[in-house]
Amino acid sequence: MNTRIGILGYGNLGRGVECAVRQNDDMELVAVFTRRDPATVSILTETAVVCHVADIADWKDKIDVLILCGGSATDLPEQTPEYVKYFNVIDSFDTHARIPEHFANVDAVAKETSHVGIISVGWDPGMFSLNRLYANAILPEGNDYTFWGKGVSQGHSDAIRRINGVKNAKQYTIPVESALEAVRSGSNPEFTTREKHTRECFVVLEEGADATKVEEEIKTMPNYFADYDTTVHFISEEELLKNHSGIPHGGLVLRSGVTGWDKENKHLIEYSLKLDSNPEFTSSVLIAYARAAHRLSKEGQSGCKTVFDIAPAYLSSKSGDELRASML
Amino acid sequence: MNTRIGILGYGNLGRGVECAVRQNDDMELVAVFTRRDPATVSILTETAVVCHVADIADWKDKIDVLILCGGSATDLPEQTPEYVKYFNVIDSFDTHARIPEHFANVDAVAKETSHVGIISVGWDPGMFSLNRLYANAILPEGNDYTFWGKGVSQGHSDAIRRINGVKNAKQYTIPVESALEAVRSGSNPEFTTREKHTRECFVVLEEGADATKVEEEIKTMPNYFADYDTTVHFISEEELLKNHSGIPHGGLVLRSGVTGWDKENKHLIEYSLKLDSNPEFTSSVLIAYARAAHRLSKEGQSGCKTVFDIAPAYLSSKSGDELRASML
Repeated sequence: MNTRIGILGYGNLGRGVECAVRQNDDMELVAVFTRRDPATVSILTETAVVCHVADIADWKDKIDVLILCGGSATDLPEQTPEYVKYFNVIDSFDTHARIPEHFANVDAVAKETSHVGIISVGWDPGMFSLNRLYANAILPEGNDYTFWGKGVSQGHSDAIRRINGVKNAKQYTIPVESALEAVRSGSNPEFTTREKHTRECFVVLEEGADATKVEEEIKTMPNYFADYDTTVHFISEEELLKNHSGIPHGGLVLRSGVTGWDKENKHLIEYSLKLDSNPEFTSSVLIAYARAAHRLSKEGQSGCKTVFDIAPAYLSSKSGDELRASML
Repeated sequence: MNTRIGILGYGNLGRGVECAVRQNDDMELVAVFTRRDPATVSILTETAVVCHVADIADWKDKIDVLILCGGSATDLPEQTPEYVKYFNVIDSFDTHARIPEHFANVDAVAKETSHVGIISVGWDPGMFSLNRLYANAILPEGNDYTFWGKGVSQGHSDAIRRINGVKNAKQYTIPVESALEAVRSGSNPEFTTREKHTRECFVVLEEGADATKVEEEIKTMPNYFADYDTTVHFISEEELLKNHSGIPHGGLVLRSGVTGWDKENKHLIEYSLKLDSNPEFTSSVLIAYARAAHRLSKEGQSGCKTVFDIAPAYLSSKSGDELRASML
């Protein structure tokens, strides 16, 4: 039986989920829920409907897993505990520091209503977290390194766009190659923020804006840029649209550790992602965990879970026999 | 409570497990079992004892997990179903084609005797298999690539040593860098055997042996070398011992896939290992799964399992709360 999917929120992530459903034969998109007037939202899947979020509870028995595609700042802390009352849910909550609190909130309701809620699914948190856990369990003595990029940071791009005189902007986070090489050499380096990543900004100015002043304001912006080596390029709106309209991202998780009676042998575990579309890759991870949520729920499990709690086989549409024969 | 570990077989892998136990505070090595005269086997752990394998059943209640460190060709197909009668067991069975049969044999006995048996644990099968599964679940449309090396192939080194006139030899399997780059470019190449790996051999000749004849015999050896570009270096025994006595290995698992309504976005997932000691890294994976086996057994689970069936959190000595706060 197919897994019937609902999507709440139809931005980049919601559209990504819609595309990912299409790539999985055992999945079916049933409905997209929106806070907007449904008549103004047009989706790609002909067999699915668009509904107002106010009517979502009516879909209780028609959807197996609801995928929450809102933001972590204000949407998900409210939405995930609310909608796990009615559905098995998946979210991509990515405010690392608030995960324990979010987990507890979702867990209480999910257990009470016998649903499964899998939170913080995506690539970081998500696949990167999994790789940190596996690598730490295997090499208990060692050091962890996470690098992000090359990719677009939405938050940093937004911060530049809020500066007076800036019409549009895109910011790329880039790992410092020499830092990566130092990690790979097994020397277990320690880095300052500046040594790990650089930031590259492509900025379109409003007419008459002062480029020198804008550049200075970007480079000295606390938290966002002041601790980094930042490069600013002023370009035309046409060039921005032509060369910088994608949302690529990626990064690396490395663990460098030792084994042996006298810790004489070094090992390096490295996981890397190069993604043309950050939201579409995240969506693809969400759909794999939706499959798991549906199965766990059918087994009678309930409560809040993370990627750490899900046995890998639950993510695949193949049976245990098929997996052992083809992938082990 | 600590996990009390037993080791069956004290070769490179058994010694690696002994070292890995020492790196994990919640593990304790209790006994090493051997087919040799126990008086002739000296181990590193002062608090553990060496026993003859004939007495192993006496340890039924004193060991939580027995780690089977024999070979896949003849030892494990017999040992794993036999010892899962008495213990939770872990093995590193790596004959990929025979895994389904081995799984069924172990599963039947493990269920009957209420033990957990986790088979085919290590890095391939093992961590590489996990990465194939995760990457396939996330990117259902794409191509898989596995490269091995740079590292020592024990089987190929043995094959060279069996040639007349060869005193000693070490063989390295090396991924072809241009093939790797083609995969990383997203071009989804198809490779012949020759295009993916080269083989480099370091050979010590017996006195008076014919180097040209030996080289010819290596390069044309069916299955082992004939399908590869092979380089043969003749060196002295001193040089072999000095520069080639380690057992490094490693490799890469990549998946190159597409997402988007029209499959317009490319993604690359890459996992790589660089290991100074193949047996010590494998042992470190075995110990992490021993922790999982002990926990699953305490929960009342039984039967044969693989890395696909184990939720990642079971591998870590940290609690769910700690993992969510520190690694998610």
